[in-house]
Amino acid sequence: MTLNAVLSRIDDDLDPALERLKALLRIPSISTDPAYKEACATAADWLVADLASLGVDAEARATPGHPMVVGHVGEGSPHLLFYGHYDVQPVDPLSLWHRDPFDPEVQDTPQGKVLRGRGSSDDKGQLMTFVEACRTWKAVNGSWPCRVTFLFEGEEESGSPSLVPFLKEFKDELSKPDLALICDTGLFDRDTPAITTMLRGLLGEELTVTGADKDLHSGMYGGAAMNPVRVLARIIASLHDETGRITVPGFYDGVPEITDEMRAQWEGLGFDAEGFLGGVDLSVPAGETGRSVLEMIWSRPTCEVNGITGGYTGDGFKTVLPSKASAKISFRLVGTQDPLEIRNNFRRMVQDALPPDCSVEFKDHGAGPASVMATDDPAFEKARQALSDEWEKDAAFIGSGGSIPIAGYFKQILGLDSMLIGFGLDDDLIHSPNEKYDVRSFHKGIRSWARVLDAVTR
Amino acid sequence: MTLNAVLSRIDDDLDPALERLKALLRIPSISTDPAYKEACATAADWLVADLASLGVDAEARATPGHPMVVGHVGEGSPHLLFYGHYDVQPVDPLSLWHRDPFDPEVQDTPQGKVLRGRGSSDDKGQLMTFVEACRTWKAVNGSWPCRVTFLFEGEEESGSPSLVPFLKEFKDELSKPDLALICDTGLFDRDTPAITTMLRGLLGEELTVTGADKDLHSGMYGGAAMNPVRVLARIIASLHDETGRITVPGFYDGVPEITDEMRAQWEGLGFDAEGFLGGVDLSVPAGETGRSVLEMIWSRPTCEVNGITGGYTGDGFKTVLPSKASAKISFRLVGTQDPLEIRNNFRRMVQDALPPDCSVEFKDHGAGPASVMATDDPAFEKARQALSDEWEKDAAFIGSGGSIPIAGYFKQILGLDSMLIGFGLDDDLIHSPNEKYDVRSFHKGIRSWARVLDAVTR
Repeated sequence: MTLNAVLSRIDDDLDPALERLKALLRIPSISTDPAYKEACATAADWLVADLASLGVDAEARATPGHPMVVGHVGEGSPHLLFYGHYDVQPVDPLSLWHRDPFDPEVQDTPQGKVLRGRGSSDDKGQLMTFVEACRTWKAVNGSWPCRVTFLFEGEEESGSPSLVPFLKEFKDELSKPDLALICDTGLFDRDTPAITTMLRGLLGEELTVTGADKDLHSGMYGGAAMNPVRVLARIIASLHDETGRITVPGFYDGVPEITDEMRAQWEGLGFDAEGFLGGVDLSVPAGETGRSVLEMIWSRPTCEVNGITGGYTGDGFKTVLPSKASAKISFRLVGTQDPLEIRNNFRRMVQDALPPDCSVEFKDHGAGPASVMATDDPAFEKARQALSDEWEKDAAFIGSGGSIPIAGYFKQILGLDSMLIGFGLDDDLIHSPNEKYDVRSFHKGIRSWARVLDAVTR
Repeated sequence: MTLNAVLSRIDDDLDPALERLKALLRIPSISTDPAYKEACATAADWLVADLASLGVDAEARATPGHPMVVGHVGEGSPHLLFYGHYDVQPVDPLSLWHRDPFDPEVQDTPQGKVLRGRGSSDDKGQLMTFVEACRTWKAVNGSWPCRVTFLFEGEEESGSPSLVPFLKEFKDELSKPDLALICDTGLFDRDTPAITTMLRGLLGEELTVTGADKDLHSGMYGGAAMNPVRVLARIIASLHDETGRITVPGFYDGVPEITDEMRAQWEGLGFDAEGFLGGVDLSVPAGETGRSVLEMIWSRPTCEVNGITGGYTGDGFKTVLPSKASAKISFRLVGTQDPLEIRNNFRRMVQDALPPDCSVEFKDHGAGPASVMATDDPAFEKARQALSDEWEKDAAFIGSGGSIPIAGYFKQILGLDSMLIGFGLDDDLIHSPNEKYDVRSFHKGIRSWARVLDAVTR
């Protein structure tokens, strides 16, 4: 009867739970932009205060970047570590938002109520599903279901530079839990819950090509002086061959083919590739020839340009011959691809492609390997059942195109397996203007965690 | 004796002449940026007032863009039309300026005194050399040397969109002069005056490639969705072949080889190609294989990327898969290359290179053909002698890599030949941060015009 009482109380307390989330969303904790450093600290402090109000022994610990929130509470087995991140993506282009990204609002849409605002889905809304489940559990039962350690990061959207040193520094404390829960993934679709068992890794690189030592007049020098935009364009154009394969030497070392069993399960999901692409006005899969869309986004590595800039980019025209051009490039990694090896090979390839008079500088934006989860742990089956009960549909084990390197670090540094459960949807517009989180995702997310806590502590 | 009195008065009045130029330079008349529209009007009004103070019947005439300043004064033959432009280039990146671009200052440098500020060389400083020569002439003689029409444009740096309609509208009035004088070019080197007899044309294009209808998460869609930055990079990379030739179909139609005579004259100039490139930290000519640097910048056409942007370009990293990427591309044209034909062929080439799901939009940033001057007009020989007298070194007939389409329009629309005389230097940093004009260029420029006026009116 305890679980039912908790679920019922979750239903009753949805409005105050939404208000708390809105308070957290109002804090503009953009981790990539130094201008928002203080906001990140404010978000960390907000979480410490909220956890403390639940009796958690919580604190914000300084790092060279943004603080980590660590908290401990409860007793009993299993000892769970819950991870989420309180930092959010930048909001540009701001002009495409229909309202202030940091003034969240519940809105009616044809698909139901949504909470609109930066971070509502990635990851503040998701993170709070677990906190709210715990809050209600404690309110109903007067105690915690088991021992829980909280770890909230503030640099997930900027490549987690402080994470590995932090996990190493506090290894004794953070390696004690039995299992990590990570809430930063999605449902398979609107009605199908999922546990993500394959995560792509991520390597972030920024390169700046320099030609002349200053911007030149394209009339005076054009034709005789090297143009770094042309050099950068040639490098980018050379990163893929005609079949969509990536040309960085050794890139496909450690890229496995998925098993026949996994392929069968994925085919059984009835994924609507046409609808997935059509939803963003595309129709032709743009990846490697001969691969399905699910493979392209779950089990195949990628190389994408995330941003490029050089020369005059304002209104009108300026006949400048730029001195510099730069691009941000990310690689999604799978299997046992080695991010550092790939970084080295990529940089060498770029160096080798430079014409005379050009130089290149690289900036490291993080490197995390792919993760494959330990689905033979009994907790996976218990959680799958709990999710299936809540959503009245069989939960799926799925892959994910996104990268949550934390799971790899938990395994490597803490020896800890991770279970990834989340309630985001493909149309949440995370990383885009007008990000939203379905109120249903939030509500059933909280209920799902209550069921999972109940299941794994039985 | 009249000329000597004028030259002597020019020497005495250099300081007030510099103060007048500084006043004009303080007006931030950036024509490409709509935010500076009012400043452009202010600059036009300043010129009208200055001309009026010399007895010129001057006015600022409205256009769909920025105003044209037109003035008439004097009597006698030949009737000269003097052209300059009062608009200036944008100033970004502002962080690279050592002082406010619109707070001009005379500074001491190892090469002598310079006037530092946006527009000091291009073209306010040059334009004022002629105005100051006229001012002194009139002060000394009490009258003008001949009939003079002034035409100051405010859109030269943004492709002169209003110029052709304006010349057509006022054709009766503006086609009366016998010869146009244009002051927007340079010395051959610090000590060698020059009359520019070949000018490259300019075609400005902006293209924006669109893939998905919104920015996407590169984890969620990366691998399956078309990335427009990659598409744009491929297009840019394809615009030149390995020998540096431009691949737009029909591009070299109308590109002449220079005559043996011209080649011999250019070789005799002792151009220091190594120093020209070395001055901006380059060493290898980047144009067509087998061409000299002077050919590359004076007599060969080019295709340059002047700016590129797409996706996230702020601090840090954002794993976005951009919806759009755009580039500003300019073509310098020579001989009888047809800008409109090249525009059509370029656009068709881009369209043909687009993969499925991508669309492209083009923006027209002006199109002007190359110009070759009528050097058999006796005024050219008179002016060459006047310049040689002032600089105590033979003046040269040279080419110019820059584009001053006005000369072509004067010929086509007004039937007017142009003579291009200017005093800029290669190290003036026009279009770049920290633009300057040598005080010597300004001073001897004023003296040069006094000598040219004296010579052509004899």
